[in-house]
Amino acid sequence: MDVPGFRAAGVAAGIKKPGVLDLALMVADRPATTAGVFTRNRVKAAPVLLCQRRLRQGMAQAILVNSGNANCCTGPQGQLDAEELTREVARLLQISPGLVLPASTGVIGQPLPVAKIKAALPELVGRLRPDGLTEAARAILTTDTRPKTAFLQEELGGRKITLAGMAKGAGMIHPQMATLLGFVFTDAAISGPVLKQLLKQAVDRSFNRITVDGDTSTNDTVLIMASGQAGNPLMADWSAAASFGGLLARLLEDLARQILADGEGVTRVFRVVVEGAATAREARLAAVTVATSPLVKTAMAGADVNWGRIMAALGRSGASFDPERVAISFGPHLVVEEGRGRGEAAEAAAREVILTGPFTITIRLGAGAFSDYWETCDLTENYVRINASYRS
Amino acid sequence: MDVPGFRAAGVAAGIKKPGVLDLALMVADRPATTAGVFTRNRVKAAPVLLCQRRLRQGMAQAILVNSGNANCCTGPQGQLDAEELTREVARLLQISPGLVLPASTGVIGQPLPVAKIKAALPELVGRLRPDGLTEAARAILTTDTRPKTAFLQEELGGRKITLAGMAKGAGMIHPQMATLLGFVFTDAAISGPVLKQLLKQAVDRSFNRITVDGDTSTNDTVLIMASGQAGNPLMADWSAAASFGGLLARLLEDLARQILADGEGVTRVFRVVVEGAATAREARLAAVTVATSPLVKTAMAGADVNWGRIMAALGRSGASFDPERVAISFGPHLVVEEGRGRGEAAEAAAREVILTGPFTITIRLGAGAFSDYWETCDLTENYVRINASYRS
Repeated sequence: MDVPGFRAAGVAAGIKKPGVLDLALMVADRPATTAGVFTRNRVKAAPVLLCQRRLRQGMAQAILVNSGNANCCTGPQGQLDAEELTREVARLLQISPGLVLPASTGVIGQPLPVAKIKAALPELVGRLRPDGLTEAARAILTTDTRPKTAFLQEELGGRKITLAGMAKGAGMIHPQMATLLGFVFTDAAISGPVLKQLLKQAVDRSFNRITVDGDTSTNDTVLIMASGQAGNPLMADWSAAASFGGLLARLLEDLARQILADGEGVTRVFRVVVEGAATAREARLAAVTVATSPLVKTAMAGADVNWGRIMAALGRSGASFDPERVAISFGPHLVVEEGRGRGEAAEAAAREVILTGPFTITIRLGAGAFSDYWETCDLTENYVRINASYRS
Repeated sequence: MDVPGFRAAGVAAGIKKPGVLDLALMVADRPATTAGVFTRNRVKAAPVLLCQRRLRQGMAQAILVNSGNANCCTGPQGQLDAEELTREVARLLQISPGLVLPASTGVIGQPLPVAKIKAALPELVGRLRPDGLTEAARAILTTDTRPKTAFLQEELGGRKITLAGMAKGAGMIHPQMATLLGFVFTDAAISGPVLKQLLKQAVDRSFNRITVDGDTSTNDTVLIMASGQAGNPLMADWSAAASFGGLLARLLEDLARQILADGEGVTRVFRVVVEGAATAREARLAAVTVATSPLVKTAMAGADVNWGRIMAALGRSGASFDPERVAISFGPHLVVEEGRGRGEAAEAAAREVILTGPFTITIRLGAGAFSDYWETCDLTENYVRINASYRS
């Protein structure tokens, strides 16, 4: 997981239970080109607001992340807390406070335990090392059951480029998600505006496919830092950066799938593909509505090929189509043709598809030429158990 | 439950398990002024389409309802089946087939067992009697645990007016609902256009407050028949019918609350009130988003005063507001003020409110003068259990 030009570490600061990693720091050797994508929720956590402000310059050198507390709905004090902690990190690293970006995830509405975190910072800085990203990846988790990391190396422009990413998800049952945090580090040399654009596109193809558009939590943050140490010719425009953009999207898609598979109570992951929609917007609406329908998701938990619920979800999605032209497949098995079921043998085959592992539901609307897809998961009793007792 | 001018009955036709009531018939002595409100889902069940067509004339004399099968996504055969059964009812009652309205609820995508239903019709017609509405109310249920009925008598225009209603809900966890069926019978004399308008208004204040606007199932149907036997002066305009409209709304609100309380796996019912929104639309959006949030609903199942989830739902609702002006109360207890929590004592008091019974969450956005509300319920493990195994 090492990326030239970066060091990282994680420690247990006592925000969560004693001894559990809950504080991470990732540091570039020099100020790095940095871009971010943030929650569109109107209620934004203090660290998100501070991150957005500091990122206007397009450069950063350190990211401080705590889990166990979202520092959200904490008023002016929450802002002061985020500023104080990043100032302390800057002091210890002997860099400018404006180059330190904060991120938080956890319970909303409780004051950040600043003293505890401050006390842990010297140890955290002392632990910084080139192979520390995996430790940091564990420190940013909340109800996740395992860390999510991804690593890619490829030759670009005659130089080996490295990308490493970490993410945390959980609570990833749509249409509501817990905080999503994602951090990517690369040694590629790339201009700020291009990096920002590529990050946005890659997030649209990955993290934004596993949640409903705009339906983000108060703390969602994805950051990428590029150190430039690979020594490749600076990627300053679209054409030069196309391959890099593809790599970045692959990395984030990998992380997104890991988040989905580790969603609260998730036992099955599936993709909903809509083809033949009248417009791009309607393709998206149809895919999202089916992928987020509690009745469809609970049916998948029970391995029930209840395609009537898919039809009902399509019907209220806002997509225009003739119900009598709809076809629905589970994997390779056509279950609905011209809006009607093809019988028990087809459903039995589809049930095997559900039981076998990650699968795809393909819906053909027969209304046009547009298609879209969404990644989703089942809704289980365990999800409800986890979320009913989250704070107790 | 008797309403002058109406007879009803229910029988076990064998659509569901043997011996379980699953077929209901409600008949007016003479053609009655009739109005309906139907699902806005693009996928409409065959009986809904037939009902809409026949109701253009504004008159009907009989309603045939089966549970256990939705007759939806059944293609042209589904239409023929609905027509054949209503024709058979008309023959037995010696009335015009165009005066018989069908309604169905149950599993989508399976052929209606026409032979079984047809065989049960003579017994059903033979059982018709003035006090048969309670029996019919039991025959229209699916996963409901108890029948929902309401009854009102009041003097209007010097005459005693009677209203009786029945409904079935279940699966009433938003934002998706199982079929909602509602049938109201009255002896009031009222003109067709006025009846239609009053029904629409009353549904907006009742059934449409317990589900997301437009997010209706494939079979939702609410019908009202007015026999005119009360002998009151014909209510032919707004002012004459205002009191009757109020009665009708009260009746439907009563039925709506019964449906909510009997929702699948529901242990708590609560109202979300939003005040101080910038526009009427934003008040509605904020109330709906909080009331349908899985994270808020699971928190209520666990009696967890997790107001951060309410803030997060408000933030993504589309309503405009300053988070630092938001106030949230559970019953009389103010838990959030100026966007921040008021501490553990306030939350403990709020928790008592949740545990005590039906309660209200009041949200003040501080952004304007508009308010709205939504009735909702908690989301429990039992809901998931019921819906994962619905067809097995």
